[in-house]
Amino acid sequence: MYQSKLFTKTRKEAPSEEVAKNASLLIRAGYIHKQMSGVYEFLPLGLRVINKISNIVREEMNKIGGLELKMTVLQDSEHWQKSGRWDDSVVDNWFKSKLSSGAEVGLANTHEEALSSLLKQYIDSYKDLPIYPYQIQVKFRNELRAKSGILRGREFLMKDMYSFSRNQEEHDAFYETAKEAYKRVFTRAGIGDRTFLTFASGGSFSKFSHEFQTLTDSGEDTIYLDKKKKLAINKEVYNDEGLQESGLNKDDLEEVRAIEVGNIFPLGTKYAEAVGLKFKDEKGQSHTPIMGSYGIGVSRLMGAVVEVLATDKGLVWPENIAPFKVHLISLKQNEEAEKIYQQLQEAGVEVLYDDRDLSAGEKFNDADLIGLPYRVVISEKTIKEGKFELKKLQEDEANLVSEAEILKILTS
Amino acid sequence: MYQSKLFTKTRKEAPSEEVAKNASLLIRAGYIHKQMSGVYEFLPLGLRVINKISNIVREEMNKIGGLELKMTVLQDSEHWQKSGRWDDSVVDNWFKSKLSSGAEVGLANTHEEALSSLLKQYIDSYKDLPIYPYQIQVKFRNELRAKSGILRGREFLMKDMYSFSRNQEEHDAFYETAKEAYKRVFTRAGIGDRTFLTFASGGSFSKFSHEFQTLTDSGEDTIYLDKKKKLAINKEVYNDEGLQESGLNKDDLEEVRAIEVGNIFPLGTKYAEAVGLKFKDEKGQSHTPIMGSYGIGVSRLMGAVVEVLATDKGLVWPENIAPFKVHLISLKQNEEAEKIYQQLQEAGVEVLYDDRDLSAGEKFNDADLIGLPYRVVISEKTIKEGKFELKKLQEDEANLVSEAEILKILTS
Repeated sequence: MYQSKLFTKTRKEAPSEEVAKNASLLIRAGYIHKQMSGVYEFLPLGLRVINKISNIVREEMNKIGGLELKMTVLQDSEHWQKSGRWDDSVVDNWFKSKLSSGAEVGLANTHEEALSSLLKQYIDSYKDLPIYPYQIQVKFRNELRAKSGILRGREFLMKDMYSFSRNQEEHDAFYETAKEAYKRVFTRAGIGDRTFLTFASGGSFSKFSHEFQTLTDSGEDTIYLDKKKKLAINKEVYNDEGLQESGLNKDDLEEVRAIEVGNIFPLGTKYAEAVGLKFKDEKGQSHTPIMGSYGIGVSRLMGAVVEVLATDKGLVWPENIAPFKVHLISLKQNEEAEKIYQQLQEAGVEVLYDDRDLSAGEKFNDADLIGLPYRVVISEKTIKEGKFELKKLQEDEANLVSEAEILKILTS
Repeated sequence: MYQSKLFTKTRKEAPSEEVAKNASLLIRAGYIHKQMSGVYEFLPLGLRVINKISNIVREEMNKIGGLELKMTVLQDSEHWQKSGRWDDSVVDNWFKSKLSSGAEVGLANTHEEALSSLLKQYIDSYKDLPIYPYQIQVKFRNELRAKSGILRGREFLMKDMYSFSRNQEEHDAFYETAKEAYKRVFTRAGIGDRTFLTFASGGSFSKFSHEFQTLTDSGEDTIYLDKKKKLAINKEVYNDEGLQESGLNKDDLEEVRAIEVGNIFPLGTKYAEAVGLKFKDEKGQSHTPIMGSYGIGVSRLMGAVVEVLATDKGLVWPENIAPFKVHLISLKQNEEAEKIYQQLQEAGVEVLYDDRDLSAGEKFNDADLIGLPYRVVISEKTIKEGKFELKKLQEDEANLVSEAEILKILTS
């Protein structure tokens, strides 16, 4: 797209009230805007990143049998009273509101209750299971303090999948499948090399749940990492029992800081039982399905990528989730630039074309902040040689390349 | 997809509490589920329809210069106090909640205030305008009664675009462009032939706003239609002055019932002025941009299509918004069916393949309810002739066709 059509602008100064690196940089680069503390609008560039992450998540969930649906924000209190999670003393970050009739409603922070309840209409027999419904949906948590930018918002976008299995064996097998799908998501999002499966507290139905933790000094969490095994254990279960059961050895572990970018959780029969979801087996006997939940904070993942990869100069997007692949910068050579822009568009390459009437310095500063994977510069100098300057964001050196080469490199 | 993997099931009986045709049929066919009155989950089939409508809307908005972003549900009261719309006596269908700190927040029912306020950070000069930001987002209205299914929900999905222009002429030109884009949306969604541009009350900045009204006996609205001119006028402005200014003649008008599926509205400078959004012209003089708003209820449009096209037997989806193009029904011939299913999938045709172990009657009843545009049946009889039975949903006659023909017809 033409950058002149993008209504957002970069800011030189970080907003003074933002302490989190992710919010500060994303606001400066024009990806997000703060509505209020912990509540951010996604501007056109930011929405493109959100959509790319969502599509990666969607593809990986579909691959393992996930079926997408969309639950509701407004929640009938009835389901939550059944599970005992309606009371503010149990869940302390509810947003609640009232219908005109006076009845209280909740704003969903998760969907175990509502989904289990919905499925009562469709699940009767063992033939109806297993199923893996998921959604990518806005969720709400009334955080007392919200200072982590989009890492921990009061309103945020989340993928939540729920598994409903007929027995423990079936559950366990899917749980392992989900682990692998999660690894693929983080690899495709560009942080696979520093994201580790981490043993966490399991609740009453299982020894462990599992987190996916991405290493970064700014991380909220402390974990203990075995670099060889590529496995970690979090603080909750970092004790003799936890170590023994996880098979990790204290001597091989290093204390590191990390951000939780995903978690998977065995739920046992707790929620299905609470709302009365059952199925009949081959003999007509009634059972409660075994559930698991599988979460990825889509907006949080975007924030985590910023925390981990961005530099002092600006954002650094992995190619798969960058809002555009190429930043095409015309230094007063719009006629030539327009040609290559059209060619790249036709070849299906996503290009942000800086066609604005600004100085080279301003354009380069903006490009540094916006952080697209490739930069192509067209100036009087490059045109004289019949070439373009091409630079990968994380490389220092730019190369002068021909039109044919540029198309080849950027479409490969 | 394999219908055996779809966890939803059809229901023979309409839910007794639903009075609206759209909700009753969509629930029976497994497209939606009721969380509470006016609040519906979109099940996998329903979400596919929502996504197809959203993509049509998105494409048409992008074509006229729209730039997508995503505003927030939670709203700071401050913006709304500036425009005078925070008080419940002014806007009587607010959902409000409270932050942990005790401050009141609103759940967005529209976004004029928040967007105008956001744009103060980016708009300085006449060079920054015009712009046409839009979003497709969940919205909330605390309806006292919610008996119209997804036509008028308490929680619903809406596309809202806002135009910010430098002067009246620029505004007027875009307003006309938007009208044409809206017509294309309704045509592509399959109800163009019965959807009419309708003069409506304009508020303080304009003689008229405009609605897009789709004819149906179950419509909530009464409008007066000139069939020749393909223009209508609604009840609010059906008076001597309105008729004169709209150029419609009372004698040419017919009173009809209709559903409003979209509306476009000149807003003048009201909201920009309220929040202090300004731009400087070439001479450095300050002006307030002229705004317009352009809404399409995406979930409402889905409901309207059901009200208008569905029959006693079930849903009838126009091809562009059907969850799948083809319903492939195997009558105990899954081996042959699987082959054609794979071929259609590879050809990019979206197929719902009924591979379940059910009677022909049950399968046909389900297919009638689900309402996909094409039906392909494979039975012992058709296999003997080396053919398939192909039927367009709205045609009575089925044809026996060869494999080559079926691929040709369904991929054309």
